[in-house]
Amino acid sequence: MLEELRKAVLEANLALSRAGLAPGTWGNVSGIDRGQGFFAIKPSGIPYGELTADAMVLVDLAGKVVEGRFKPSSDTATHLEIYCEFPEVGGVTHTHSTVATAFAQAEQPIVCLGTTHADHFDGQVPVTRMLTPAEVAKDYERETGKVIVEAFMECGIDHVRMPAVLVAGHGPFTWGRDAMDSVRNAIALEEVARMARDTILLRRAFGQPIEPIPDHLLRKHFDRKHGPGAYYGQQSGDSHR
Amino acid sequence: MLEELRKAVLEANLALSRAGLAPGTWGNVSGIDRGQGFFAIKPSGIPYGELTADAMVLVDLAGKVVEGRFKPSSDTATHLEIYCEFPEVGGVTHTHSTVATAFAQAEQPIVCLGTTHADHFDGQVPVTRMLTPAEVAKDYERETGKVIVEAFMECGIDHVRMPAVLVAGHGPFTWGRDAMDSVRNAIALEEVARMARDTILLRRAFGQPIEPIPDHLLRKHFDRKHGPGAYYGQQSGDSHR
Amino acid sequence: MLEELRKAVLEANLALSRAGLAPGTWGNVSGIDRGQGFFAIKPSGIPYGELTADAMVLVDLAGKVVEGRFKPSSDTATHLEIYCEFPEVGGVTHTHSTVATAFAQAEQPIVCLGTTHADHFDGQVPVTRMLTPAEVAKDYERETGKVIVEAFMECGIDHVRMPAVLVAGHGPFTWGRDAMDSVRNAIALEEVARMARDTILLRRAFGQPIEPIPDHLLRKHFDRKHGPGAYYGQQSGDSHR
Amino acid sequence: MLEELRKAVLEANLALSRAGLAPGTWGNVSGIDRGQGFFAIKPSGIPYGELTADAMVLVDLAGKVVEGRFKPSSDTATHLEIYCEFPEVGGVTHTHSTVATAFAQAEQPIVCLGTTHADHFDGQVPVTRMLTPAEVAKDYERETGKVIVEAFMECGIDHVRMPAVLVAGHGPFTWGRDAMDSVRNAIALEEVARMARDTILLRRAFGQPIEPIPDHLLRKHFDRKHGPGAYYGQQSGDSHR
Repeated sequence: MLEELRKAVLEANLALSRAGLAPGTWGNVSGIDRGQGFFAIKPSGIPYGELTADAMVLVDLAGKVVEGRFKPSSDTATHLEIYCEFPEVGGVTHTHSTVATAFAQAEQPIVCLGTTHADHFDGQVPVTRMLTPAEVAKDYERETGKVIVEAFMECGIDHVRMPAVLVAGHGPFTWGRDAMDSVRNAIALEEVARMARDTILLRRAFGQPIEPIPDHLLRKHFDRKHGPGAYYGQQSGDSHR
Repeated sequence: MLEELRKAVLEANLALSRAGLAPGTWGNVSGIDRGQGFFAIKPSGIPYGELTADAMVLVDLAGKVVEGRFKPSSDTATHLEIYCEFPEVGGVTHTHSTVATAFAQAEQPIVCLGTTHADHFDGQVPVTRMLTPAEVAKDYERETGKVIVEAFMECGIDHVRMPAVLVAGHGPFTWGRDAMDSVRNAIALEEVARMARDTILLRRAFGQPIEPIPDHLLRKHFDRKHGPGAYYGQQSGDSHR
Repeated sequence: MLEELRKAVLEANLALSRAGLAPGTWGNVSGIDRGQGFFAIKPSGIPYGELTADAMVLVDLAGKVVEGRFKPSSDTATHLEIYCEFPEVGGVTHTHSTVATAFAQAEQPIVCLGTTHADHFDGQVPVTRMLTPAEVAKDYERETGKVIVEAFMECGIDHVRMPAVLVAGHGPFTWGRDAMDSVRNAIALEEVARMARDTILLRRAFGQPIEPIPDHLLRKHFDRKHGPGAYYGQQSGDSHR
Repeated sequence: MLEELRKAVLEANLALSRAGLAPGTWGNVSGIDRGQGFFAIKPSGIPYGELTADAMVLVDLAGKVVEGRFKPSSDTATHLEIYCEFPEVGGVTHTHSTVATAFAQAEQPIVCLGTTHADHFDGQVPVTRMLTPAEVAKDYERETGKVIVEAFMECGIDHVRMPAVLVAGHGPFTWGRDAMDSVRNAIALEEVARMARDTILLRRAFGQPIEPIPDHLLRKHFDRKHGPGAYYGQQSGDSHR
């Protein structure tokens, strides 16, 4: 069932591994078929080199495995929550990429310090609050999804314009139009985090404050790729062809 | 038309990608035929793996696309401005390479801290001022070119002896005799930026000031590669054969 | 003798080299057959590219070479001490991986700053005391093993829940169920050290204290992979299939 | 003439390039035949991919090119000075490897902060003084060699036990028994520099002083690989087989 979706999710998982953002069996990518109401996700703990389209696990929006011979990723309930609460999301990626994870561990949002950031994320990448003992004890992975949604709701952040979040003490989740698009955002997030780390260390070395770029520059870069009048790429509004 | 130029620009774009300085579809390289008054540039948002010589877009010095089935890079107007104002430039490269971009985001020039820098750039790599809201609103990419030229004019910097600039809050542009030479300068700039970042962090850790190398050392290294009596390489004045 | 063990130890040594954690001839991996009471270890100073299963050296638990045409790794006595004192250990890896070694050189334990750490190590990765002149003079490699064991005994650390240590001024040793599992832990340790370094630098840049993640989050992540009710991976309790 | 030497020097130059320590045409390796009194060195500015044994340039100890169709490396006179003043040297490598160069640019010696350092270098890697305007004007590359020798003579450093130096504001030179051995030392120096940089940043973050490891640990590690009773590797005294 859903061969195309499984294949696309496999390809996205392999792209994540090729990008070097998922050592060992770390990280996972999923993609959803909104029409059917199922998403395909990487099985838990299988090395990327052994993955096949057939190994992807199909899960419904109640969180039930509907097809697959393996257990789904242990983070499946977090993906599920994102799909349920963020209707525009077609794919989700979770990594422990080094520098984005360092910001998550430092409980610091990634302030928009330049146009590379603005090309992908509309403003600072938010960091969630730390989960409470009760949330961790109850239904950890689902509650992780809930604090992500909470961070967006409380600050009125648009999940389409901000396809990334840092879970405090844990690491980044990114999403996009489909599985591969969520991987592209995971790659961009790590690159943006590296630039932000170095910018912050340099600004401190020179005794400068850490301040975001002017709003007009942020607006311009985000909108030329993602706004109504987008002119980046070959088809307006599509930043990836 | 201009098959040779298209091929050279394709090769330069692929070299940039191979050097790891252009993840995804980031970055772009162009090269000009001064005789014909046309330059070839990477199309916008096409993955490097899908590029062909035939996909390069030909643009004239009025900024009009004269040939090509794709839209040119969204940064085309910045390349155009550089070609119009810097007559010695034969090729231009734009990247978001991590550390050079971090210096641009920190709005810090890269001071000449050693001979690797002096081998390629005659003095500190300048950083532009931030664009104004009016400039961003008007004709952003062209205005980006104008602030680059302004930075050179105001400080009387020679664009042949300083084939690189950091656009504040954005990232580096480099240029050279031709497209491939501008890529070589982009690779050198990122390497020099990495050394400068570590030098700055080490000097701070040891409580030392950040000071450029003595001028006689800068002069010696730049001139032995690029000066009238250059003796680096197999042909004097040519630093790349 | 013990062809299977030699092959497994060869594969683990090659995996360490492929992971880029062992430049030149640095690093060494061993694996033990508890039934026979022998362990196989990399020969001293042989480039990874020249290793064969046949080149692995068999050593007994008295430290005597029982088979092998080469001298065993100069760190053999440290592996031996770990096998003798930590009965659950099936494989041992020693590297000079950059950032884990930097923590060892800074004589700083790696505090648990996030869930990536908690997925692999139950609490902060301990650092040993520096060896005394007498210990260095006497039987250096064996004494290195003894200070490792001392660090675990004094703090009542469980060597199964903490399969890694930093030897002060030297570098990391990791272990696991078998040789390959100890290599996986060496890879995880270096990745965790990179994240910790960046987290520490970012926290300092923002004037924040360096504090471990809440215990309930540490417990949750370690136990979902390694606890009695582990649910990560395809077989409970096995974090690697 | 001296085909074997040319081949060995070619291989060493290619090994340096493969190690990623010589982007573009940076860096150069030479090797000497003490019997004949000639050394072979990389030609100036030729990409590593185009090098052949036949392209290596033969130079005598008066600095005269005795064979070769290309100009020798512009750093030839520095290699020459090292061969003339350090009789045990069989090969010399010069790189601009990122972190070792950053220490040279910070004018900081690399203090021995751990056993990885002690395995290769007997104490802190010295940094030279900056060259004077007169020295730069006179015979720059030869004078660079002279300040290296000066740094060793003034502090009574043994060039066999310390096969590396940082030239202030420039970068590292390493040497060894032959060309390939000098490349191994260049690779070890860069790795040691990375560890030292991270150790220094971590110690500063934790408010600790930057101090070398105890002398007994330095002695032990250097001597077990390079001392009279060396027991590392398969043949005593040989750290590379």
